[in-house]
Amino acid sequence: MKRAYNFNAGPSAMPEEVLKEAQAEFLNYQDTGMGIIEMSHRSKEYDAMHQETKALLRELMEIPENYEILFIQGGGSTQFMMTAANFLKKKAAYVNTGVWAKKAMAEAKFFGEAYEAASSADRNHCYIPQEFDIQPDTDYVHLTANNTIYGTEYPDFPKFDIPVICDMSSDILSRRVNVSDFDLIYAGAQKNLGPAGVVIVIVKKEFLAAARTELPTMLKYSTFAEKDSLYNTPPVFAIYMVNKTLHWIKNQGGVDAVAANNQAKASLIYDVIDNSNGFYKGHADKAYRSLMNITFNLATPELEKDFIEKGKAAGFIGINGHRSVGGCRASTYNAVPMEACAALAEFMKQYQKEHE
Amino acid sequence: MKRAYNFNAGPSAMPEEVLKEAQAEFLNYQDTGMGIIEMSHRSKEYDAMHQETKALLRELMEIPENYEILFIQGGGSTQFMMTAANFLKKKAAYVNTGVWAKKAMAEAKFFGEAYEAASSADRNHCYIPQEFDIQPDTDYVHLTANNTIYGTEYPDFPKFDIPVICDMSSDILSRRVNVSDFDLIYAGAQKNLGPAGVVIVIVKKEFLAAARTELPTMLKYSTFAEKDSLYNTPPVFAIYMVNKTLHWIKNQGGVDAVAANNQAKASLIYDVIDNSNGFYKGHADKAYRSLMNITFNLATPELEKDFIEKGKAAGFIGINGHRSVGGCRASTYNAVPMEACAALAEFMKQYQKEHE
Repeated sequence: MKRAYNFNAGPSAMPEEVLKEAQAEFLNYQDTGMGIIEMSHRSKEYDAMHQETKALLRELMEIPENYEILFIQGGGSTQFMMTAANFLKKKAAYVNTGVWAKKAMAEAKFFGEAYEAASSADRNHCYIPQEFDIQPDTDYVHLTANNTIYGTEYPDFPKFDIPVICDMSSDILSRRVNVSDFDLIYAGAQKNLGPAGVVIVIVKKEFLAAARTELPTMLKYSTFAEKDSLYNTPPVFAIYMVNKTLHWIKNQGGVDAVAANNQAKASLIYDVIDNSNGFYKGHADKAYRSLMNITFNLATPELEKDFIEKGKAAGFIGINGHRSVGGCRASTYNAVPMEACAALAEFMKQYQKEHE
Repeated sequence: MKRAYNFNAGPSAMPEEVLKEAQAEFLNYQDTGMGIIEMSHRSKEYDAMHQETKALLRELMEIPENYEILFIQGGGSTQFMMTAANFLKKKAAYVNTGVWAKKAMAEAKFFGEAYEAASSADRNHCYIPQEFDIQPDTDYVHLTANNTIYGTEYPDFPKFDIPVICDMSSDILSRRVNVSDFDLIYAGAQKNLGPAGVVIVIVKKEFLAAARTELPTMLKYSTFAEKDSLYNTPPVFAIYMVNKTLHWIKNQGGVDAVAANNQAKASLIYDVIDNSNGFYKGHADKAYRSLMNITFNLATPELEKDFIEKGKAAGFIGINGHRSVGGCRASTYNAVPMEACAALAEFMKQYQKEHE
């Protein structure tokens, strides 16, 4: 069976090599006579993998030693709550770049005052704000690095003189970032890092030391930091798939090589949009275009529906827009191969010829 | 490679047939050209599997229609917090049958008053209390059905005239229970149901309607109930493995057949203990012995260490006791085959002969 052209927005394509490796050892991990999915999280085999996963992430992202790396369940939505529960004492600033940023801000209100430091709502989030209104006594500013629904991404991150929390769920390890510019980074694995079921949290130790202490055990980052994410049973298999994905990124040449590839992949599709004389209309302003989620419209919702259906019939999966906004979207995360992007670009050109 | 004799306490053995099926379709689920681990949780293929998983659980446990079935991340420890966050308004009663019950009670204190309705601490939790002191205005009583560390299990569940919340993480689907006797049941999957990374919650709709409403989104059971556990991305692969495990239970003949098998498996090992003239000393009182976790001691910690080491060399994995209590433990969850229990019983007899 040929691999599908998988443009799903998340959960999303995983590298074929990673899947084949996991498949081969599914019932017998390192000659133990059992799969890692059946293995105690207190076993030496699991522990070695757990530690290696952290070391690989530290190496690939050049995470300084004064940052903890944590594995937490519950998705980005649980992080919306945890970030505020731990760090919002007086007030927190949120940059509203779309639905997910707004959801993060809504959860913050359970723990203190949360206000909009900037917003791109005036033009349906087709850009990233460049000016920020930070009030005195603000505990942190929260950013959403990449906005999957609108296809926007911070080209460079703004600098602040207060702590910065950043949701990198949809572009972590897709490009180089300077971890030291952030106090806490979180990212659900199911786009660039592996399967759904685990969130990576990277948090500066000095920032963590200032967290609220009177919280239920599972809401405290310190629970995870103090017990190396093994306070309770971690999502063993999800972490294992992250481990394999990190090896794969390293084998590709690391983050810079992957970033160059992502740029080339996205360009294939953006070029079709830009050269279509308006047949395809990109949603995001060019300066803020995401390399991960390419969002575009056709002339009418009917034409979009037809495009998506014909695309699906031709093997392109997941090219519908988010249910909240419609339109079309191709998610070109790390593991989506160049070949799939080239095939989609070709399909788009052909479709335009036939429907113009 | 021969399968290991896997007696891990959790994550734990999974049925070989389940693993082989998942392995075979790891890169190509239902001819989609992709693995289910890469698939959108909004796809029709995922949705069909999600619905089937709930239907299978409902059928196997005979869950009445006025109960919701939810999939939540974060393990039992997150349920300790969520149960109290949603349902503890004045006070709640906890039956202290060991470490996990105490942890549940500790989290409850963030949301209201939590008191011990009974305790087995006087004899290191080797039995299940039979009398309960329930105070007026108690919102619910919390039970731990099976106590993995001590190897005790409720033979029958007591009846209460207030709501009952029960942690069935380590014995769900190992035997028949009457779901109607409970208002909320929760169970981490990683013992009898599948891999780590998902908790099954079964909650009576009338009880859910009384839950606290002013809570962060991810702490509210209603978020999961209203969105069919798809408010955010669920742990797709973990749920898929639960699905396969439920099919396997059904193919074994359902819960009663599995329960009879569990009884026979545990008897093989308990019989060795009981006929060892005290060489092996069972920890739990006979009336409260668990069919899932068989706990025992040898004469000295040194002898226990030797037994565990020689056992490991002979292929028996995970027969050490919990790090908090020491001793020996064999976890004989649903998926541990009769053959493994027979082999362990034989090994124990042989070991006794050689060391008596």
